Amino acid sequence: MVRVVRLALIGFGTVGRSLTKLVALKNKLIEEKYGVRLSIIAVADSGGAVVKEDGLTPYELLRLCELPRSAVSTFTPYGLPGAGVREIYSRVVPDIHVEATPSNYVDGEPGVSNVLYALESGAHVVSCNKAPFVLRFRDVMDSASRKGVKVRFKATVMAGTPLIDLLMSLKGYEIEGLEGILNGTTNFILTEMHENLVTYEEALKKAQLMGIAESNPDLDVKGWDPAAKLVIISNVLGMPMKLGDVVRDDLSRLDVREVFRAVKEGSVFKFIAALDLREGRASVKLTKVPRGNVFASITGTLNAVRIRTDVNEITIVGKGAGGSETAHSVLDDVITVAQEVGS
Amino acid sequence: MVRVVRLALIGFGTVGRSLTKLVALKNKLIEEKYGVRLSIIAVADSGGAVVKEDGLTPYELLRLCELPRSAVSTFTPYGLPGAGVREIYSRVVPDIHVEATPSNYVDGEPGVSNVLYALESGAHVVSCNKAPFVLRFRDVMDSASRKGVKVRFKATVMAGTPLIDLLMSLKGYEIEGLEGILNGTTNFILTEMHENLVTYEEALKKAQLMGIAESNPDLDVKGWDPAAKLVIISNVLGMPMKLGDVVRDDLSRLDVREVFRAVKEGSVFKFIAALDLREGRASVKLTKVPRGNVFASITGTLNAVRIRTDVNEITIVGKGAGGSETAHSVLDDVITVAQEVGS
Repeated sequence: MVRVVRLALIGFGTVGRSLTKLVALKNKLIEEKYGVRLSIIAVADSGGAVVKEDGLTPYELLRLCELPRSAVSTFTPYGLPGAGVREIYSRVVPDIHVEATPSNYVDGEPGVSNVLYALESGAHVVSCNKAPFVLRFRDVMDSASRKGVKVRFKATVMAGTPLIDLLMSLKGYEIEGLEGILNGTTNFILTEMHENLVTYEEALKKAQLMGIAESNPDLDVKGWDPAAKLVIISNVLGMPMKLGDVVRDDLSRLDVREVFRAVKEGSVFKFIAALDLREGRASVKLTKVPRGNVFASITGTLNAVRIRTDVNEITIVGKGAGGSETAHSVLDDVITVAQEVGS
Repeated sequence: MVRVVRLALIGFGTVGRSLTKLVALKNKLIEEKYGVRLSIIAVADSGGAVVKEDGLTPYELLRLCELPRSAVSTFTPYGLPGAGVREIYSRVVPDIHVEATPSNYVDGEPGVSNVLYALESGAHVVSCNKAPFVLRFRDVMDSASRKGVKVRFKATVMAGTPLIDLLMSLKGYEIEGLEGILNGTTNFILTEMHENLVTYEEALKKAQLMGIAESNPDLDVKGWDPAAKLVIISNVLGMPMKLGDVVRDDLSRLDVREVFRAVKEGSVFKFIAALDLREGRASVKLTKVPRGNVFASITGTLNAVRIRTDVNEITIVGKGAGGSETAHSVLDDVITVAQEVGS
């Protein structure tokens, strides 16, 4: 028996489009492998929404992906200019709400309101937007448990590398802490500085030209992004934490002469995010790592995290960003929820 | 509501004892965290069994662990000299059968018969014995699905490092293959040969003195153990494979002069297990790896595997053996099954 699971996709940037293509192209395969048929019934961006209650066809989905930014509401005959989550839900409540709007750590919007509204309406939620889980973790979880619905968000940390699944699978263990490289942009900048002995400014410029760093790189360079990931992980592991609790270094202060000295003595600087569950502390710090260390071999945009338990250490390495990787993780979560619930 | 889940533990060597201590000491914690109370109602070794239908107390479990090998049946008043799985099951069928007997790839016994008997009796099975999954994967899975019971075996691959969970969590991805270091003993021997430029025989002797290699090291050195793991992984990923299908090198043939040459040119030999799902091929081969490669930094008894999907690569690193690590993975599986079923 194939179960139909209706999705509303909120946010139609790189990840949203990548996910839409995946659903259009992999739907048959998913149906055969997991017994669920994913049906996208609504897509929203900052300009409005598209709603088709019996589900957009693969062809319609692929056509949607060719529209420019913020233009889904121009899609006739299903476009609704200016419509948002409330308008969509007034027409049809999806089985799963997929939140793919950008992470905003100032007030959390629009992610926080969207996710809470979806949960209160009785929809399950899958999100790659970090903000609701960084700023309002407890509220989101309480709302979900009150409504008896599921929330999944593995794409918020390390994108396509399933760190959160891994942490959740360690049931017999006591996790004491973890540390690693949780931001690809800053690791790319550091790799450039060490391999080519260029200044921070030169390395940043190259990262920006390659589309790896934003024009305003503060979220990465000042450690907000890895700190946000630590907050999510800490909450997942049962230790409430706020973004302001994470001590952060500023990568832009690193002088290339220090890099030169480190290289001479056989070590490298890494921007290490660390969470100590015993002490209740978290930090993102420029740390000197000896050449033989696993983290020293993590170059470019790669991420890596070492988990410490009462019994052993486990390290996971993979790309921590990317539209396609993130979309696949969202799809993983959607399939997991769909298998558990269906309709 | 706490649910009581009754366990029969078959095999009482290093892993069995380690698991028994864990259940005795962590039971309260598990109950609070996961809502299940684990009750060991039977323990068997090669000399007989202990059966107590309302569950052994933590104190009794710890006393059992102090008995010498093959002596559980001397435990009064619950000991049953000579009793095996059938005698246990004639008295009481457990909720979960834990198979912790040694892996035997010649005829698979006693693991294969025990596991199939447990499944046919309607018990769920958790195993760290590889043989049933290497030699009779299809039969085991068919029996489980016919009886509507669960089978879990994540400890069979990489012990405490949850590679199988990781593979199963990649639902949106197409896994194309994987490669890595799946045997700690041979990696220790290779590390010795490279770091101290000693011969294979000298490195093996050191490994044996340290309890890392068996007195007959063939299972590791001739690649049977990593090959068995590849067979399990391949079957988990839907590609049936037999142990004889895996091409294997013999590590004992490696001349220290070749090691010397490799080191001089900046590379190291690793015993790389590889599975190619597209070509349907598997091998365990001595492979030269450049120094900068992640696998080159995996020294001693560490294991590491890189998974290749249609979207990305994920590497997981951790200890691949050890009684405590294996016992924790078995406990993880037991908790997972217990949460899904209970009584």
